[in-house]
Amino acid sequence: MLIDDLAAGLPADRLVRDPDVVGSFAHDEAEWAPYALPAVVVRPHTAEEVQAVVRACLEHRTPLVTRGAGTGLSGGANAVDGCVVLVTDRLTAIKEIDERERYAVVEPGVVNGDLRAACAGRGLWYPPDPASSPWSTIGGNVATNAGGVCCVKYGVTRDYVLGLQVVTGTGELVRLGRRTAKGVAGYDLTGLMVGSEGTLGVITEITVRLRPARAAERTVAGYFDTTVAAGQAAAAVAARGVLPSALELVDRHCLAAVDQWKNMGLSADANVVLLARTDSPGALGEHEAAEILDCFEQAGATWAAQSTDQAEADALFAARRLAYPALERLGPLLTEDVCVPTQAVPEMLARIDAAGRRHGVHIANVAHIGDGNLHPLLVTPAGDESARKNAQAAFEDIISDALDLGGTVTGEHGVGLLKQPGLARELGDGVLAMHRAVKHALDPHHILNPGKVFPEGTPA
Amino acid sequence: MLIDDLAAGLPADRLVRDPDVVGSFAHDEAEWAPYALPAVVVRPHTAEEVQAVVRACLEHRTPLVTRGAGTGLSGGANAVDGCVVLVTDRLTAIKEIDERERYAVVEPGVVNGDLRAACAGRGLWYPPDPASSPWSTIGGNVATNAGGVCCVKYGVTRDYVLGLQVVTGTGELVRLGRRTAKGVAGYDLTGLMVGSEGTLGVITEITVRLRPARAAERTVAGYFDTTVAAGQAAAAVAARGVLPSALELVDRHCLAAVDQWKNMGLSADANVVLLARTDSPGALGEHEAAEILDCFEQAGATWAAQSTDQAEADALFAARRLAYPALERLGPLLTEDVCVPTQAVPEMLARIDAAGRRHGVHIANVAHIGDGNLHPLLVTPAGDESARKNAQAAFEDIISDALDLGGTVTGEHGVGLLKQPGLARELGDGVLAMHRAVKHALDPHHILNPGKVFPEGTPA
Repeated sequence: MLIDDLAAGLPADRLVRDPDVVGSFAHDEAEWAPYALPAVVVRPHTAEEVQAVVRACLEHRTPLVTRGAGTGLSGGANAVDGCVVLVTDRLTAIKEIDERERYAVVEPGVVNGDLRAACAGRGLWYPPDPASSPWSTIGGNVATNAGGVCCVKYGVTRDYVLGLQVVTGTGELVRLGRRTAKGVAGYDLTGLMVGSEGTLGVITEITVRLRPARAAERTVAGYFDTTVAAGQAAAAVAARGVLPSALELVDRHCLAAVDQWKNMGLSADANVVLLARTDSPGALGEHEAAEILDCFEQAGATWAAQSTDQAEADALFAARRLAYPALERLGPLLTEDVCVPTQAVPEMLARIDAAGRRHGVHIANVAHIGDGNLHPLLVTPAGDESARKNAQAAFEDIISDALDLGGTVTGEHGVGLLKQPGLARELGDGVLAMHRAVKHALDPHHILNPGKVFPEGTPA
Repeated sequence: MLIDDLAAGLPADRLVRDPDVVGSFAHDEAEWAPYALPAVVVRPHTAEEVQAVVRACLEHRTPLVTRGAGTGLSGGANAVDGCVVLVTDRLTAIKEIDERERYAVVEPGVVNGDLRAACAGRGLWYPPDPASSPWSTIGGNVATNAGGVCCVKYGVTRDYVLGLQVVTGTGELVRLGRRTAKGVAGYDLTGLMVGSEGTLGVITEITVRLRPARAAERTVAGYFDTTVAAGQAAAAVAARGVLPSALELVDRHCLAAVDQWKNMGLSADANVVLLARTDSPGALGEHEAAEILDCFEQAGATWAAQSTDQAEADALFAARRLAYPALERLGPLLTEDVCVPTQAVPEMLARIDAAGRRHGVHIANVAHIGDGNLHPLLVTPAGDESARKNAQAAFEDIISDALDLGGTVTGEHGVGLLKQPGLARELGDGVLAMHRAVKHALDPHHILNPGKVFPEGTPA
């Protein structure tokens, strides 16, 4: 029996069988996606223990779902019936930070914020900063190719992953990638693993590229009456060729929810707030801040200014980061993650408003608006099945609109379970067939997070 | 018969059967790698014609070798016996440059320098700049994940490819990737195609990300007595956290060869020249130039200065770019492309010197030294078989040294044929098995550039 084999191959404290605890690992933060109870939860302490778990699952043809902190928003870490859930919360070593070569080697369970703090102490910077950075893990960030606030200038997780150690779908422990600045030795299997949501291998170690710590940022804030006007301001910034180090949207629903929770004394004067930053040094930074301010004013900001109060600016960014958990306290959230071309952002925001009105759904908005990545949050009263159906209908409409405008169904959260219908429409049959072929090649027994990202079916 | 089928499916001028012309497409610039005569050369004008060629090859199980300008240095585009060579030199349209979203859509045969010039005319910049940029094509750059001078700060080709249109190994014409700033919809098949050297699909269109045009660069030059001293200077720049926009090494053998060819009046006062640039604006740029200068002087430069003569600085960079073709005029070249950690550069340069002495081989050096990517050029007199054997032995020793120092066998040129033994050592059996599985998944009939990158064998 699987559990006996796992117990025989691992120290006793690695297995969790208490039903209450097992139940707490049944799903991530995508409350809308289906999930089941795992047969058992395992918490390996080493790569070799991870390998033992994969081999036991192979032996018994048991599905294996790997998860970090469970902060995913698409159901990618939701358990499937009778599966093993492998939790990385005992794999938390920062093994190495090389200041001269500027890379770090970490285990997958290291929390994003902990790595960033460790780097900051050495004058280094790990840029990817999802809103979940105080809780989410580097392993989970890699599995979903997480984005964040600074991506608009500095790129996403994939841009920082140099190498991985992985247990493959055939139970081998291998190293992919490199530690050098450049390298083209064979296929980019490292990049293929990034964003594959645990369906192609189980990550046991990650080597990330670091940057030198950067200069202090300047903040520009603007208030707008509508999301569309704010979208026009963001599109104007992109069109001028200014590269802000952050360009975020947060609306008054989110600010109110955060304020209600944390009593931060946030302004309620604006319907929509845009928060921009530039980290360019000296005169260039001044010039960029002035350009951004001009874009805000031209687009009809009711108020806009370069912040002279660092504490106030930090509070606004903190509120942006807390928007999701704050709203989640008010009822189940269905979270979109569409990404559209920057010039299509105003139209996309108008269509989101229209979808909310059409289906009678309350939609709050936060967005990494500088790269067109929008997170309309569809809020429903708990237990209201009719509201839930309306929200689902609005969700599908928003996805259609994003595809219609040349966008994608997921900018940074991953496909998981929630975005599979949209994914099939975005990719088409030919590209889905390639996905199935690659999945079958690297996970021939289909044990790795089966049913996630796309329905597997039979490879062509 | 294959050629009859090709002739039936394509306009007459697409097929080239004249033996002299066919022979001119038998290999790229890797003169040391084996090649054979193609059965026929095809020059399709559209993606649909490319698809027709792939389907004919599938029908007849005939190998298909795709090539751009043939400037490859690893034999990746060398013909295999009886193959079809597909040349992209009729697929040269720049289809779109979007100034606001900052992307370009091009056919694979567009020359790198032509795209850069077209972008410059719109205030935009396509960064990847291999030394071959006046001749090499974007399709070839994508197939090898080409690097270049500015990579040390701005990354390589993969960092700029947003999307591809590809004819798959099953003859489907599909679109991969996106045009938005971010996106995680499914596996990164775009990134997987980049650097796969034509073994996983035939690229028919490329969407590349662009950057806003940048400010003028400052140049710092330094003369050194030895490559090792120059390597210490480069390692010091990296260790200080300065990010130059170029950091190149070129030795007097290369300068002399260029001068002999082009009469540029280059200085012969130095054994080794380091060329650094910074494009940071204002005071930061001044600071970085001063830091670089200090690193050069601390490492024992016999002369170093920030250039006040833009024409002289440009001439030195032009000489760097011409080093390969200039040396190639003097006899067959065996070109290394090892990449090591920046702090290991001085030791690697010492080992390159030692390998040359040990085997009696004349080695000239150019290097993208800022990211540890070294190009020792092993020069042999034409027709001297014993010198050729010695060069091959030195080549293998240098690869061993690079692996020993934590490096890779190829930083930017690709594996092709020349680096296959080194690749097998670098990756190991488990990772090679993954390569074979992915290759078999996407090219199930093994018609796409077979035998390149790694020996195929049977997938596990």
